[in-house]
Amino acid sequence: MAYRHRIRVRYGETDRMGVVHHSVHPLYFEEARTALMRSLGFPYAELERSGYLLPLTEFAVSFRRGARYDDEVDIEVSMESVGRVRLRLRYRMVRVPDGELLAEGHTEHASVGPDFRPRRLPEEVVRAFGTAVSREED
Amino acid sequence: MAYRHRIRVRYGETDRMGVVHHSVHPLYFEEARTALMRSLGFPYAELERSGYLLPLTEFAVSFRRGARYDDEVDIEVSMESVGRVRLRLRYRMVRVPDGELLAEGHTEHASVGPDFRPRRLPEEVVRAFGTAVSREED
Amino acid sequence: MAYRHRIRVRYGETDRMGVVHHSVHPLYFEEARTALMRSLGFPYAELERSGYLLPLTEFAVSFRRGARYDDEVDIEVSMESVGRVRLRLRYRMVRVPDGELLAEGHTEHASVGPDFRPRRLPEEVVRAFGTAVSREED
Amino acid sequence: MAYRHRIRVRYGETDRMGVVHHSVHPLYFEEARTALMRSLGFPYAELERSGYLLPLTEFAVSFRRGARYDDEVDIEVSMESVGRVRLRLRYRMVRVPDGELLAEGHTEHASVGPDFRPRRLPEEVVRAFGTAVSREED
Repeated sequence: MAYRHRIRVRYGETDRMGVVHHSVHPLYFEEARTALMRSLGFPYAELERSGYLLPLTEFAVSFRRGARYDDEVDIEVSMESVGRVRLRLRYRMVRVPDGELLAEGHTEHASVGPDFRPRRLPEEVVRAFGTAVSREED
Repeated sequence: MAYRHRIRVRYGETDRMGVVHHSVHPLYFEEARTALMRSLGFPYAELERSGYLLPLTEFAVSFRRGARYDDEVDIEVSMESVGRVRLRLRYRMVRVPDGELLAEGHTEHASVGPDFRPRRLPEEVVRAFGTAVSREED
Repeated sequence: MAYRHRIRVRYGETDRMGVVHHSVHPLYFEEARTALMRSLGFPYAELERSGYLLPLTEFAVSFRRGARYDDEVDIEVSMESVGRVRLRLRYRMVRVPDGELLAEGHTEHASVGPDFRPRRLPEEVVRAFGTAVSREED
Repeated sequence: MAYRHRIRVRYGETDRMGVVHHSVHPLYFEEARTALMRSLGFPYAELERSGYLLPLTEFAVSFRRGARYDDEVDIEVSMESVGRVRLRLRYRMVRVPDGELLAEGHTEHASVGPDFRPRRLPEEVVRAFGTAVSREED
């Protein structure tokens, strides 16, 4: 089961086409990813304080339909694979309340230290994140 | 040969990791795409005025290295495929002056009318855009 | 009493100084303003559908302290003055849980129609918004 | 005479009203301010490397007319006052080519060290910035 995080579309996130601009999806996915990590007991802010950064190595998204100002959307996020130096997460963005799929995508992250060199995540983090690997969705 | 468009990184485009946040790459690619279309004789603003919208159906990027505040970067953009209802473009983001590759990716666009239904691009636009299909890079 | 709206800081909203970039405060104030109008029975999205736009004519903010990634902040928003063609709202941004004041400011809005010409707000909207005029704070 | 810096409006910087969203003006002003400081011999990136940060303490803008996608605008920026721990700059945003005034505003900055405590700017910086104090415009 994916973790679900709700967001309401801000006016400034739309563009002149009337829909959420595609530069905003990375921010929505990020907000949902942050919420997922907190729910797993390892908030990303604390990981950074402990010297583990998770910069993106890859970002991809397919767009089905636009979200509009003041729409509520759910971001469903799950871990796709969890390793000591690499994470991959999947995202689905659906409209509330009709559940229409608006976009889906993934992010890939490297675990690095403050010097941006690879740094192996603590075993307990890998274990906790591993519990959020989705079985049904792939 | 790809079209080359230069951008200087704004302070507000960096994040607390000190590098350009990944929600900014879509804006850089978009700015370069706009410049490419203008150079081909069909500015996107005019296409929209004529009732042709080109919303994204897909966006993907791989990140190699971060760009920093005040860095100059070149976005090299080329058409990958040009059809009457679908376009695909490729992008490389390189750092000036050392040419280091920072990121690369692609966007895919549908041609639709103001009602968001598929609308075939005029033949002259397809022909003009087709001249920017890169031969070497694929 | 001001209406209070809670927001959690996104990673991408920080800059390389480590704090929320000042281009983000307009988005936070806007989100709080949207929530206030909804609570008063006239969601801004519905006003727009009825042909009333409220573009900003003025924006000002003073910054006291920075907000950091993953901080929760409350935006306290109230109407300062409500007329048929002009609104003025006040905002205070405080950190949760210690209540530290981070920033404060105001926005001024004109009521216009889709043609951007002045359009007098319906009396019932003025009355509803008027109930949110703060008495203590000025 | 104010320093003049040209910017072309990105698609993603517009909102569903069709004009540049007011969260973008801070980024335009910042880009122009960066260009002004470089022209005066003290790029802000170098100031930061030397341990001088210039966070905003105040931001204000009045909006006259909206800028639209693909418009070119000039940001005219000048120093209003230059002290060792406080700077104030003024901005006018005008449309190219007709010179129509779209917005104007100011920013105020404190000079601080990496610990965010006040730090007096070097005398040579104050002198250089002082040459950009506009005499006509106030």
